[in-house]
Amino acid sequence: MEPTHIEHIGIAVESLEEAIPFYEKTFGLKCYSVEEVRDQKVKTAFFKIGQTKIELLESTAPDGPIGKFIEKKGQGVHHIAFAVKDLSTRLKELEQKDVQLIDKTPRKGAEGLNIAFLHPKSTFGVLTELCEKPEK
Amino acid sequence: MEPTHIEHIGIAVESLEEAIPFYEKTFGLKCYSVEEVRDQKVKTAFFKIGQTKIELLESTAPDGPIGKFIEKKGQGVHHIAFAVKDLSTRLKELEQKDVQLIDKTPRKGAEGLNIAFLHPKSTFGVLTELCEKPEK
Repeated sequence: MEPTHIEHIGIAVESLEEAIPFYEKTFGLKCYSVEEVRDQKVKTAFFKIGQTKIELLESTAPDGPIGKFIEKKGQGVHHIAFAVKDLSTRLKELEQKDVQLIDKTPRKGAEGLNIAFLHPKSTFGVLTELCEKPEK
Repeated sequence: MEPTHIEHIGIAVESLEEAIPFYEKTFGLKCYSVEEVRDQKVKTAFFKIGQTKIELLESTAPDGPIGKFIEKKGQGVHHIAFAVKDLSTRLKELEQKDVQLIDKTPRKGAEGLNIAFLHPKSTFGVLTELCEKPEK
């Protein structure tokens, strides 16, 4: 199921209002989109570096996944996302290889992508997301 | 100082012997190099996904930076590395912007790159590395 590229790196931050200007002024990147993903209780901000996006994640509620992550581990890299083709088939293959899936079937993520998360217990501590561009 | 791409993602693992076959069999990636970086007390294994490398890091000593990281936080993403041009100038610019540098001048990293780390206190919890391909 070789991934084609790193689709994005998700970074948990306490405040987009502070983190966005930092990424813009310090690294010269441009925030091209801010989006709220309500069912994940996050606001996201996107930057592009080559093939890969940086996705800053701010929790909109303390009991959301990013709120809990920051409480436990502090700000930092939350997940990495591989771009793959034919996500449904990839998930079935991974299940057959005994990889623990958080999402057994694709669901909608930010930017309209089809996404699924693998459990970090199965992936050496790295919360791993697979992303697929939907057919138009 | 806009980075051109994500050069690599560094992932701390307890055992390369276990993690390499996992990345190969599960994600269909090919480990193309294993290298020891003695002054960092690590053994590294490299995989390529598009423009970006996955760098698995196994500590060769409990008191090395990766050994300490795993003891404190467990296995997982350790750092992300941006590819930049003219690294010495970039470091001077960052210092002027009050970014805390771990390496004030470039040093040699894995794969012969010139590298420098920025302190995660200055970068919203993300240990960030800048990498430059040396002039031949």
